[in-house]
Amino acid sequence: MRADTALPPVVILCRPQIGENAGSAARAMLNFGLTELRLVAPEFGWPNAKAVAAASGASAVMNAVRIARDLPAALDDIHHLYALTARRRELLKPVLAPGEAAARAVELAGQGRRVGFLFGAERTGLTNDEAALADALVTIPTNPAFSSLNLAQSVLVMAYEWGVRRWTSKTSPPLPKPASKAEVQGLIDHLLAELDAIDFFRATDRRVSLSLMIAQMIERRAMTPAEVDLMRGIIRDLAGGRRARRDQA
Amino acid sequence: MRADTALPPVVILCRPQIGENAGSAARAMLNFGLTELRLVAPEFGWPNAKAVAAASGASAVMNAVRIARDLPAALDDIHHLYALTARRRELLKPVLAPGEAAARAVELAGQGRRVGFLFGAERTGLTNDEAALADALVTIPTNPAFSSLNLAQSVLVMAYEWGVRRWTSKTSPPLPKPASKAEVQGLIDHLLAELDAIDFFRATDRRVSLSLMIAQMIERRAMTPAEVDLMRGIIRDLAGGRRARRDQA
Repeated sequence: MRADTALPPVVILCRPQIGENAGSAARAMLNFGLTELRLVAPEFGWPNAKAVAAASGASAVMNAVRIARDLPAALDDIHHLYALTARRRELLKPVLAPGEAAARAVELAGQGRRVGFLFGAERTGLTNDEAALADALVTIPTNPAFSSLNLAQSVLVMAYEWGVRRWTSKTSPPLPKPASKAEVQGLIDHLLAELDAIDFFRATDRRVSLSLMIAQMIERRAMTPAEVDLMRGIIRDLAGGRRARRDQA
Repeated sequence: MRADTALPPVVILCRPQIGENAGSAARAMLNFGLTELRLVAPEFGWPNAKAVAAASGASAVMNAVRIARDLPAALDDIHHLYALTARRRELLKPVLAPGEAAARAVELAGQGRRVGFLFGAERTGLTNDEAALADALVTIPTNPAFSSLNLAQSVLVMAYEWGVRRWTSKTSPPLPKPASKAEVQGLIDHLLAELDAIDFFRATDRRVSLSLMIAQMIERRAMTPAEVDLMRGIIRDLAGGRRARRDQA
């Protein structure tokens, strides 16, 4: 079974307190192809107008939301559970990064397993008893000096990591073919000939060093600040001739 | 220079329309250690009460927000720019996943480079001219049937990918420093001004397409055969003026 035919993971919000967050979570989920949202004993009513507004049209998720009276009821068909938790806990569980958990989830889903991502209440997070039901904990690495991801943002990160593995195709458009060496050399020769014609280099030793710089710049295709200055000097001198001509006209 | 002592990337919001999104972006950024936010010609006033509320205490970011009148002004010290764009574009740029862009950004920051992540306006995204200033495009892989990440969510994904790598980067030997975006933009502006003066483009629609091609060519720093031909045409026309002058003398 391939990941794209397997059932995607379920998102479970445990005792969520703010309706809007359930809607934002639904929107975040659907962006990455997650469609099953379960709410365990929500503190708000359902259906919920603020949730619908925040879902921004993610009706495929919103219409299928399942309300469960407690966490075990929400987990009835789940084989593998990953619990998102910001705090370091005393539980003897592996702690994974979101990307690691998503990689395992994709693999397990490909084997026909049902995977759940579990998120705690906005203010208090998961209790130890709730997190104990998980196979592993997942911690989003954040700035130790400022950790304030909200519930929907945490769902977004987890859904994104799933989506990266679900939607990333190796179909980056082909980059244009670079010029051949002969074409590039032709450009360099052309430019040097024109520059010689207006005596841009003024002295033989300047020509040696500057023509090497020009050739390298064009050949290597990455410009340093000095190279930009040089290019501008070239244009100025070339255009200076044009300007002088216009003044004479 | 280690990544944790290097300057983290700058987040640039181009013509943002909703103050709240700037605040949410600031909050998302600081969660992953990004502190520099620049707003290009925002459609809302600044300081902005709704932005402050949405920032949820991310004052380290909010107090340092810089307002720029246009995009080049916001890029003056940026060496490498990654443009977040949902749409497939006709630009000849590499398209990276957020994780790939973040990996490059960590490496470049470790070499003392300043990296920018560029985000377009909420409703319209980046224009081609804006995206043309980037070294690469970044596309967040989403569900083709439902792609509605908002601006702050996109910033969150990019900041998250930076944060994931922030603590685990390896050092690699420094490459020569490239020209800053301001220097490169100066070169492009200079060239276009000189070309306008000699009526190189001849028609408005030719100027639109060719000036984008020129900007991309100089910005992307790799030339295609067609671009070599164009460059030769430019030099020929510029030098033609000089030659005519010499013939008159």
